[in-house]
Amino acid sequence: MPAPTNPTEIALQASTTNGMSSAEKKKQARAKFEGVYQVLRKDLLDHFAGEGMPKDAIEWYSRNLDYNVPGGKLNRGMSVVDSVEIIKGRALTDEEYLKSAILGWCIELLQAFFLVSDDLMDSSVTRRGQPCWYRVENVGLISINDAFMLEGAIYHLLKKYFRQDSYYVELLDLFHDVTYKTEMGQLIDLITAPEDHVDLDKFSLKKHQLIVIYKTAFYSFYLPVALAMHVCGIPPSPNSPSDPYKLAHEILIPLGEYFQVQDDFLDFGGTPEQIGKIGTDILDNKCSWCINTALAVATLEQRRVLDENYGRKDAAKEAKVKEVFEQVEIRRRYEEYEQTAYERINGLIETIPADAKDGELKREVFTSFLSKIYKRTK
Amino acid sequence: MPAPTNPTEIALQASTTNGMSSAEKKKQARAKFEGVYQVLRKDLLDHFAGEGMPKDAIEWYSRNLDYNVPGGKLNRGMSVVDSVEIIKGRALTDEEYLKSAILGWCIELLQAFFLVSDDLMDSSVTRRGQPCWYRVENVGLISINDAFMLEGAIYHLLKKYFRQDSYYVELLDLFHDVTYKTEMGQLIDLITAPEDHVDLDKFSLKKHQLIVIYKTAFYSFYLPVALAMHVCGIPPSPNSPSDPYKLAHEILIPLGEYFQVQDDFLDFGGTPEQIGKIGTDILDNKCSWCINTALAVATLEQRRVLDENYGRKDAAKEAKVKEVFEQVEIRRRYEEYEQTAYERINGLIETIPADAKDGELKREVFTSFLSKIYKRTK
Repeated sequence: MPAPTNPTEIALQASTTNGMSSAEKKKQARAKFEGVYQVLRKDLLDHFAGEGMPKDAIEWYSRNLDYNVPGGKLNRGMSVVDSVEIIKGRALTDEEYLKSAILGWCIELLQAFFLVSDDLMDSSVTRRGQPCWYRVENVGLISINDAFMLEGAIYHLLKKYFRQDSYYVELLDLFHDVTYKTEMGQLIDLITAPEDHVDLDKFSLKKHQLIVIYKTAFYSFYLPVALAMHVCGIPPSPNSPSDPYKLAHEILIPLGEYFQVQDDFLDFGGTPEQIGKIGTDILDNKCSWCINTALAVATLEQRRVLDENYGRKDAAKEAKVKEVFEQVEIRRRYEEYEQTAYERINGLIETIPADAKDGELKREVFTSFLSKIYKRTK
Repeated sequence: MPAPTNPTEIALQASTTNGMSSAEKKKQARAKFEGVYQVLRKDLLDHFAGEGMPKDAIEWYSRNLDYNVPGGKLNRGMSVVDSVEIIKGRALTDEEYLKSAILGWCIELLQAFFLVSDDLMDSSVTRRGQPCWYRVENVGLISINDAFMLEGAIYHLLKKYFRQDSYYVELLDLFHDVTYKTEMGQLIDLITAPEDHVDLDKFSLKKHQLIVIYKTAFYSFYLPVALAMHVCGIPPSPNSPSDPYKLAHEILIPLGEYFQVQDDFLDFGGTPEQIGKIGTDILDNKCSWCINTALAVATLEQRRVLDENYGRKDAAKEAKVKEVFEQVEIRRRYEEYEQTAYERINGLIETIPADAKDGELKREVFTSFLSKIYKRTK
């Protein structure tokens, strides 16, 4: 049999996974998912060229895509495929795989849209081990329009692959709603914790929760599962108390909140070996779970130390903040938070019927997320 | 009768226009359209507050909306209402007016999204007689997320007002498509004519046409008419050569191109009194119709002058460019262009049946645009 040259075929190859270790299976699943990136990359660039765009613009767009879309952990994108497989309770056909993976890549495009612009707004230096896109030569503020085009690409792909499906309009509403909510979260974060002006009076655990839910939980947790449910044909019943989308929402938002609290904690409490980077939340005046927890229990003297040293781009001041974090026992408090969150989310998962059939929302959709997160150290 | 306190009622008042001068009618039409801004402003802020957003974020969003959305000429937005009235051939009911005006304001939101981000990317100083939004105290790069939220607002409003309509999905596809195309145009413009690097080899009349069509014509001309057609229930027939949307497209894209060429010409050839500002296209290295026309006919010596003086932020150099423009008779060439464009577009308009009935696409939709543009000097 000749080797396939069409990217769709390449992407859909490699499905014989018998007798492989779990690490090998993960690697293969990632490679298969990455194969679909080549499909959509070609879709987008062919369409762009078909609109008569000049050569330098085609090159620019392809560089924008390749630099910003495929290099992440791909957890969000791949979780669409995983969730569809769990709901269907069987391996996917090639067409089912392709459509699920396209939706997964649409989340990765959405994330790229957010990250390219967030990095510029936050004056970040590196992302995924390379300079942030706006810092690449000749890019600068053009990155703003590049971010727009990453978002625009989502709707071009949804139209190409889903225009004929009865749930097309649900996909559009979902992406719009989640995008708008994420932007709301980003706004609160930007005005609560500007990099260059520290005012801890603006912080609170309540504010932190709001930022985390809007800025991260919707697009990272609710979106992939809701997309998987739509592609599996699970109908929304917005007026019913047992609407499966409402149920998924009620579990995934707390799950996303827990994930981000953990991320915040690891920035302080994890070692660089564990988290693969050096935490800078204290230096950067981030509205993190750690500072908000410390503020909630600090004595007047500890509060004074935090006010004077938080968010100050100074290693000695950072050390003083860390001292207060240790004094108020952030590590113990995080362990307690994690245990409580874990049990609460497990309780929520148990509201899903244990005997859900193939094609219905199953507990495993959620436990597969939770088991990847619980007590992770990286 | 008590004075209405509900913004919808205020907006829908003032419809007795008998015995008024044309200027008075225009003023009243604008006031009525502006009344609908108060309606959607309340929709957006009520929803935002309902999501539990903190007070300072609500204030920020309301300032973003008020600063960037309502202060323009409103031509694009109001042309949706005008086009709906022409197609229906009668005065609109209150509900018809409200829905048409909401669509009009969605174009104004889209334009605000583009202008807020374009001004930042272009380092512009003022817009509509006030500092650009990113230059307002404490705004800066937060304007990027503010631009996103202006775009996000469009889809919130479309869902609120049109979710039940059969053409809802057409509205979404249309906004997506036009937004993506505008971003493509902005990309070509940004890489062809960066403010800080002059390379006239990248310019050509062909490139200018592409930029103008993608960056301006789609959202300013095709979008308002296509929206009006949808709200009037004109069905798309994408596979038919007489698809009314294709017909509208074939007229409105050249019309938008002509409008932008005129805009480019007036930046050079209009007086500050006429255009209400001082033209800066030459100083700013803009890929304008004037420079591209000059380049197409310049002698080697004139080309040398243009290469050395275009886009240089220097009044003496600007004067040298203007001298070349006069030498190559840009004014005469523009008059010829305008006459040819006018006649060609009139010819295209005549492909629309002269006897179109109410509810169908009528010539007047297009002639009303053309008559506002032809030989305008401001």
